[in-house]
Amino acid sequence: MTKKHSILDREGLKPAAANGLFDRRAFFKGGAALATAMTGYTIGNSAAAQQLVDDPWSRGIGNRVQAYGTPSRFESGVARILSNPNAEPRTQHGRTPHHLINGTFTPNGLHFVISHTGNPDIDPSAHKLVIHGLVERPLVFTLDALARYPMVSRMTFLECGGNSAALWSPEPLQNTAQEIHGLVSCAEYTGVLLSTLLEETGIDPRAKWFIAEGADASALHRSVPLHKALDDAMIALYQNGERIMPGNGYPMRLLLPGWEGNMNVKWLRRIELTDEPALGFYEARTYTPILPDGSAYSYYFLQEVKSFITHPSPGLALSGAGLYEISGVAYSANGRIARVMVSADGGQSWAEAALQDPVLPKAFTRFRAPWRWDGGPAVLQSRAWDEAGNVQPTRAELISRRGEASRVPRSPFAFPSQHYNGPTSWRVGEDGEVTNVYA
Amino acid sequence: MTKKHSILDREGLKPAAANGLFDRRAFFKGGAALATAMTGYTIGNSAAAQQLVDDPWSRGIGNRVQAYGTPSRFESGVARILSNPNAEPRTQHGRTPHHLINGTFTPNGLHFVISHTGNPDIDPSAHKLVIHGLVERPLVFTLDALARYPMVSRMTFLECGGNSAALWSPEPLQNTAQEIHGLVSCAEYTGVLLSTLLEETGIDPRAKWFIAEGADASALHRSVPLHKALDDAMIALYQNGERIMPGNGYPMRLLLPGWEGNMNVKWLRRIELTDEPALGFYEARTYTPILPDGSAYSYYFLQEVKSFITHPSPGLALSGAGLYEISGVAYSANGRIARVMVSADGGQSWAEAALQDPVLPKAFTRFRAPWRWDGGPAVLQSRAWDEAGNVQPTRAELISRRGEASRVPRSPFAFPSQHYNGPTSWRVGEDGEVTNVYA
Repeated sequence: MTKKHSILDREGLKPAAANGLFDRRAFFKGGAALATAMTGYTIGNSAAAQQLVDDPWSRGIGNRVQAYGTPSRFESGVARILSNPNAEPRTQHGRTPHHLINGTFTPNGLHFVISHTGNPDIDPSAHKLVIHGLVERPLVFTLDALARYPMVSRMTFLECGGNSAALWSPEPLQNTAQEIHGLVSCAEYTGVLLSTLLEETGIDPRAKWFIAEGADASALHRSVPLHKALDDAMIALYQNGERIMPGNGYPMRLLLPGWEGNMNVKWLRRIELTDEPALGFYEARTYTPILPDGSAYSYYFLQEVKSFITHPSPGLALSGAGLYEISGVAYSANGRIARVMVSADGGQSWAEAALQDPVLPKAFTRFRAPWRWDGGPAVLQSRAWDEAGNVQPTRAELISRRGEASRVPRSPFAFPSQHYNGPTSWRVGEDGEVTNVYA
Repeated sequence: MTKKHSILDREGLKPAAANGLFDRRAFFKGGAALATAMTGYTIGNSAAAQQLVDDPWSRGIGNRVQAYGTPSRFESGVARILSNPNAEPRTQHGRTPHHLINGTFTPNGLHFVISHTGNPDIDPSAHKLVIHGLVERPLVFTLDALARYPMVSRMTFLECGGNSAALWSPEPLQNTAQEIHGLVSCAEYTGVLLSTLLEETGIDPRAKWFIAEGADASALHRSVPLHKALDDAMIALYQNGERIMPGNGYPMRLLLPGWEGNMNVKWLRRIELTDEPALGFYEARTYTPILPDGSAYSYYFLQEVKSFITHPSPGLALSGAGLYEISGVAYSANGRIARVMVSADGGQSWAEAALQDPVLPKAFTRFRAPWRWDGGPAVLQSRAWDEAGNVQPTRAELISRRGEASRVPRSPFAFPSQHYNGPTSWRVGEDGEVTNVYA
């Protein structure tokens, strides 16, 4: 039952930062492997055989194969947290359990959802997309019509402008990564580029914006600069291979890779080209916070470079000193993630994390770093850079620019503030419990 | 209601092969877009407004947000076909509906499943993985123990050696892409490399193979050459971000990227290092067909380069002459897909398809080509090359090498033959219906 060796020790590899943090090079020492050790337990070969008694589930025929698979009953806790589980007449949020999943994207059942008037139960054979306004030829597209166009697939993150709002709070709230960061997810979308359809309709030279409108009861609409339509905007039909689920816009949504979640209009029924923005509810009000100098943070659409650690994080207590993997996700509207640094001492010293290939633009990139916890207090942080040279600001820098907006919530419907992309700090206590702190 | 123009015509782009087939360069003409035209219908701007009457689902509060999302009720037909829906005491197959999904991987609910004795209902807190045999230190790993090790994520296809068995039939069977090719799927797996764990156990120099065994009632086991363990074999814990579902091996499976599906042992409980293979049921019998010259096709593990067209395909009838996108998937155990050619005249002439980025090794690559159907008979085919220089053989080449094995089925449990990687030919009739033919 005792561990005999550790690759890290054997290779003589030294930590790259304080408090036992190794850097990405550790993954390349000793060949393909970096053993973190102390987790498997040693037994004799005869004892090994004793481990292989048949458990009850090995002694009979198991459950039947399903036409549409679902997770094990032991995973029922891996679910979205609902802000409004009884569907009272207000917005419903469902947040992604980042600390309970892994990999580089979010399965559809767990992708975040925000619905202001519930999820419309749309009959796809009756649904139409109208493109009109400042075009040469207004066109109507059924789902069958769209199916014949050239399609593209791309991985992209989607983040609510109000994600991580808890971190604007003057005091750190005791929330999980799901509660704090659960309004960002990542998926592969397949559909028709909006530019393909605009080749069909033609574009009136006076057009500078387009307004996208949903078929939900609130007819949610947002204004989008036309250049995004000619870049990478997509009419998304499939998410992670299958039809988009109702909470995410079935049968089609607008996808604006890297831009504020609310703009990626779900249940899309109309695109109107215009010469000016609509000044709709969500752009003139909710996503236009007033800044300390009296100016407004408006028509700012990019979800800027950001990262957070998912493992360890609150709810995932450490089970004793020894080696662990620190991992999390990083993403930026400005392209690929170029670098992620991690700290185990609250930002005093840093080591470079390994980035999981392939690193794709405007998509989650999972980072990983090995860490030997000595059993004492530690504060874990990550900081990401994107290929455009942007870096996550400190929390103090954000507060000084935008104000501690959570002190003046303007409406029960509005997030106190938006676009938090500073660091997240997880404190590891001597008991192995992880808590949210400001460091 | 009439279409005014077509980008293909406007750009003067000529087909690259007979029967109206364009090549990948068509996607780059005219900027970002290639309009296939004739599918949206033109209306006046005033008529456009009339399209925007509120449908019933826009007039009230919709459905509540779910803790774990599921597809729209209108998508209930997008499901695995079950070979044994009443779970009688024999093997159960669930096949992926390739013609009803899109993108580059398979959602978990629709990933193919083969279970010989049902899906064991494993309690993850009681499950253990034992690594023993020709090692220096036998070790036992719980799920908690594995969670501390460095992990990797990778996209990989998984294919049953018996996939596409219908194409060995002397006469073409009238099946869909799901029925013929539904035993291949693609997903992102996250877990611990087996090589990482073998660094912990150490390897006795006499070890040349390992035997992997599952915790299902049949204790399914396969022998794997040790070099695969030191290359990219993984103990997979997550599939597409969430825990592997029961049908695919919850809580852990062996993943051997590119190798015969049956070897990727599900419900993994044991890895024993040995100096020779086990000669287990599935390697000595099912996956060892006798060849026409009396030799055996045994211990051949690679799922070689292959492709098939998913759109159009049987069940997806064409709705009149005009432009369509032909798309499908290609994959190879020998690395990345290098090229896919498509034909609309049964292999007489070919055009190069566009490959969806990122092209990843041992993973699905979606290919796409624009096609203008003139309304007459056509036979669609695809042919893929991998980066190692391999190309799909013709069906005649395969038959001459391996025999038309379907004439001598050896057991109700065994596929008549395995490892079909020749072409699939879809005939488009003048009525737009698509059928399976040999061409």
